[in-house]
Amino acid sequence: MSQVGIIGIGHSKFGRRDDVTVQELAFEPFKEALTDAGINRKDIEATIIGGSPVYMTQRSIAGPVTEYLGLNPQPVWLTEAACSSSAVALRTAYALIKSNMHDIILVLGVQKMLENPTSEILKIMGRTGDVQWEAPYGTTFASYYGMYAQSHMAKYGTTSEQLAAVAVKNHYYGSMNPLAMFQKEISIKQVLESRIIASPLHIFDCCANADGSAALIIANEEKAKQLSDTPIWVTGLGAATAPFSLLTRPELATLSSAVNASKQAYDQAKVSAKKIDVAEVHDCFTIAEIMAYEDLGFTERGKGGEFVDEAYIGGQIPVNVDGGLKAKGHPVGATGCSQVVGIVKQLRGEAGKCQVDNAEIGLTHNVGGHGQYCVVHIFSR
Amino acid sequence: MSQVGIIGIGHSKFGRRDDVTVQELAFEPFKEALTDAGINRKDIEATIIGGSPVYMTQRSIAGPVTEYLGLNPQPVWLTEAACSSSAVALRTAYALIKSNMHDIILVLGVQKMLENPTSEILKIMGRTGDVQWEAPYGTTFASYYGMYAQSHMAKYGTTSEQLAAVAVKNHYYGSMNPLAMFQKEISIKQVLESRIIASPLHIFDCCANADGSAALIIANEEKAKQLSDTPIWVTGLGAATAPFSLLTRPELATLSSAVNASKQAYDQAKVSAKKIDVAEVHDCFTIAEIMAYEDLGFTERGKGGEFVDEAYIGGQIPVNVDGGLKAKGHPVGATGCSQVVGIVKQLRGEAGKCQVDNAEIGLTHNVGGHGQYCVVHIFSR
Repeated sequence: MSQVGIIGIGHSKFGRRDDVTVQELAFEPFKEALTDAGINRKDIEATIIGGSPVYMTQRSIAGPVTEYLGLNPQPVWLTEAACSSSAVALRTAYALIKSNMHDIILVLGVQKMLENPTSEILKIMGRTGDVQWEAPYGTTFASYYGMYAQSHMAKYGTTSEQLAAVAVKNHYYGSMNPLAMFQKEISIKQVLESRIIASPLHIFDCCANADGSAALIIANEEKAKQLSDTPIWVTGLGAATAPFSLLTRPELATLSSAVNASKQAYDQAKVSAKKIDVAEVHDCFTIAEIMAYEDLGFTERGKGGEFVDEAYIGGQIPVNVDGGLKAKGHPVGATGCSQVVGIVKQLRGEAGKCQVDNAEIGLTHNVGGHGQYCVVHIFSR
Repeated sequence: MSQVGIIGIGHSKFGRRDDVTVQELAFEPFKEALTDAGINRKDIEATIIGGSPVYMTQRSIAGPVTEYLGLNPQPVWLTEAACSSSAVALRTAYALIKSNMHDIILVLGVQKMLENPTSEILKIMGRTGDVQWEAPYGTTFASYYGMYAQSHMAKYGTTSEQLAAVAVKNHYYGSMNPLAMFQKEISIKQVLESRIIASPLHIFDCCANADGSAALIIANEEKAKQLSDTPIWVTGLGAATAPFSLLTRPELATLSSAVNASKQAYDQAKVSAKKIDVAEVHDCFTIAEIMAYEDLGFTERGKGGEFVDEAYIGGQIPVNVDGGLKAKGHPVGATGCSQVVGIVKQLRGEAGKCQVDNAEIGLTHNVGGHGQYCVVHIFSR
């Protein structure tokens, strides 16, 4: 069984990017990833783009982006699974390489959202939820995760302070990430005193919509070893769905998609949760990170609120030590690739002030929608 | 090298489908394909949906569709390449099977468009073209293809009558397809007397927006042979892009994406154009079918206008003998799968009144946008 390796990474500044078109935004991490991999754009045999097309005036962005990057006549298409769109792009590219259809592929997450007013973004995003049965009752993404938080609190006694502690941790690490949207530390008090968006979630419990992009160049084992001294191998992949409608979910304080996807990835990589040295999890809301600790098996069910202290560097499993969605911002189609860039830097030992000592095995957990999709990847150096 | 086979097909009625939600529309061909393959939905290990999300109120349809079809917790995602979205879904699924990640996959093309008024559809569709440099000058899809037709006429002397003959042929076959949107024959005179949409294209030179769905169940060689007496093998795959902006294309009377994609598919299948027994090509406008004859090598460059007579059953290569996009209607995300369903029926000898005698090798040609994407597949029984 041949391996699939990541040989190049790139990451744009996340935040408000009115300074660039979507094509220009795609170019930034592409150029960086090419240089990082030491290859020419003519070496790219295909491109898979993760993105959520509905936020952008330009439709079907794969076409214009491919032209702008000088990648014609190579094939390209877009993958979409809401906020996990670029994690499924990596899964798609992995399959294209393992099947010997291509040797070297560009995986690109790129998203512009902020050309819309916030009210419009929330409306578009809300339509990822059930427009027939749930949206008429006012569901938005914050309200879905607000219900998950209420449920977690009721069932396990999780507190608002514990939720806030996730935001404090991620902003602490974000303050050291020059590509993050927010590079400022915050305090528990600031979170708790900030305005309520969907009870019990305060505005500082929520990540922010953003523009941004990230790129990965992946290759088959032969090319990866030939081109890179530090290929990072994709050793485990998992992808699963959970019921779309909340009505049909037996429980709200967990995402069964994450449980199933992580089980697949652990099985394939032949590791247990305890072996993970560093993780990037989908903290679209603070409660989501607490649920992820449990769904991924980092801690026991119900103990997620207490695990935050163990998610710092030096703790059991450092999580989101690049700032997470919370501090980096969440350009939905780019987030999955951004997480992988964070893990690759860690496994290469290039994470600077936020380096986890001797990180050998990393994990990404990318959730789509309100949990109807989850994609987990495990990487090793 | 193990093969990938199609073991189940399903196809909804195309047209105005206000009678169903997108989930219900997806269910129709899914149920039919399951029955056709003689399997249970629990046998489906993953689903890839081809669709263009921007036309529908419900966003990220993979989630609700998966739930409605009873396919949780299996993974699902959507692929998008404008009108070739479900051809890239098949390409993705092929890779997932060839890489041994899954054994049996559902490929589903599903699209609702007509919940929007026509003016809105044209606006949305037009945004697949270049919104920065071309749309301000009034480009729509009909105008792009109108320019291709003008160019073909100027260069090769192609006539309006030849364009009209494509529509006449496809409506003739559509009249025998109970799933087609239009089941009426038309005459050259009717086409030429119909109103101009984008000169020289009359309204009868244009396909119609539609709602519709089609499904394929594909499997690895072992499962395909075990489950089906008549598996249809995917023997050649090609996918390519052409420059997005018309300004950068050296010529308008051809799609280089189609030339490149078909070359890849012929090479892999080890056949030449002459060996194709039956084809489904992307006749979004009549000129598109004429260009396809040439781009696919069915006839010499410039002779496409004369080839229409050879594209009837009994001619050199029967093309779109299920009615094509022209008579079936064009639910953009479903068209690629619909084409494959047509070819599978032919290769199984199940095409009824429109059966091509002894069809052994079939081809599909699915174009995305104004040609920035093209996907070609070759199939054998």
